[in-house]
Amino acid sequence: IRFYLHDQFNGSNPTTAIVLPPRNNETLFGQVAIFDDKLTTESSINSKPVGRAKGFLVIDSLSKSSFLQSMTVELEGRKGTIVLHGQNPFTESRREIAVVGGTGEFRNVQGYALTSTTGAEPGGLIAIYEVHLVRF
Amino acid sequence: IRFYLHDQFNGSNPTTAIVLPPRNNETLFGQVAIFDDKLTTESSINSKPVGRAKGFLVIDSLSKSSFLQSMTVELEGRKGTIVLHGQNPFTESRREIAVVGGTGEFRNVQGYALTSTTGAEPGGLIAIYEVHLVRF
Amino acid sequence: IRFYLHDQFNGSNPTTAIVLPPRNNETLFGQVAIFDDKLTTESSINSKPVGRAKGFLVIDSLSKSSFLQSMTVELEGRKGTIVLHGQNPFTESRREIAVVGGTGEFRNVQGYALTSTTGAEPGGLIAIYEVHLVRF
Repeated sequence: IRFYLHDQFNGSNPTTAIVLPPRNNETLFGQVAIFDDKLTTESSINSKPVGRAKGFLVIDSLSKSSFLQSMTVELEGRKGTIVLHGQNPFTESRREIAVVGGTGEFRNVQGYALTSTTGAEPGGLIAIYEVHLVRF
Repeated sequence: IRFYLHDQFNGSNPTTAIVLPPRNNETLFGQVAIFDDKLTTESSINSKPVGRAKGFLVIDSLSKSSFLQSMTVELEGRKGTIVLHGQNPFTESRREIAVVGGTGEFRNVQGYALTSTTGAEPGGLIAIYEVHLVRF
Repeated sequence: IRFYLHDQFNGSNPTTAIVLPPRNNETLFGQVAIFDDKLTTESSINSKPVGRAKGFLVIDSLSKSSFLQSMTVELEGRKGTIVLHGQNPFTESRREIAVVGGTGEFRNVQGYALTSTTGAEPGGLIAIYEVHLVRF
């Protein structure tokens, strides 16, 4: 499973809202955001939409190196959701986030998602996700 | 495992508190609530108590269709907890939430919970939960 | 896997920040904290550092008995993280928290962590963690 995520935190139609401000303006420690991001097949935000990724981010690093990302993925044409929950070490070019469960077609899965920031676009950033699942 | 959950968000003894307000009053996107809800064997809040469901809700949908529910279930007479974490698509009559783990008797479980709103009562809403577990 | 966690909530270099105040000053229901705590091999905060535990706590108990702890553990010399997510019944001397997944070396794990508060130190409290994992 592979898709591009569009985190639109600026611009006229943001899909991310900061709901708690940081306690430290340098590291952003303490900041919490909630998002409902568009997923597409290709890098362009105008390419075919394939779903939504919803959830929240908690900036829990005092060393400016990662945040905790809790995110559910819904894909068009597939019944159910995939649940990711874990640290996203955003300073690394290739990151891995834990898959902790799922529903519908994705019941009883475990696994991991590999993600990289692939570029910027008006209003936000683009990341690619490759999700690897095992079912029990 | 089957129980009724009483989400008392109004009235004199609420078991849910909104801790962050919505960013959008129509969709409620951005709202966060924390709860410690009573569980019973039957639909009535005065039926036999069987435990508590504690956790938090994050309204992470821009389309007014779901929220992220992180909830641990404790059942009387059973040692341990069941951990649910995933999207609750509240506009559907029959919803499914991922079970991502557990403790005590419920160590190393994975699974899903089926839930429906079964009615209203003074101060809140009633939902039935049927929890299906597999152990590894 | 065994380590000591140093929750420094007071003092000059706190590693925990309260980001939402309680709704009830007696039970602390509604309080949310974010942390990035030091881990060491021995009880003393000056013993060998072995990693960090990052995440958040949600006080979701109306009976002053537990909180929901979402925590990722990074250990020096080991690639990846372990994800804990579940209720921490802090009034019990020996507590168990669910392990719901992991990354890197800890891909596709499930399990549990046993934890006890072992003492106080200037600025905070010390807890021991023993993490038990199964891999699928």
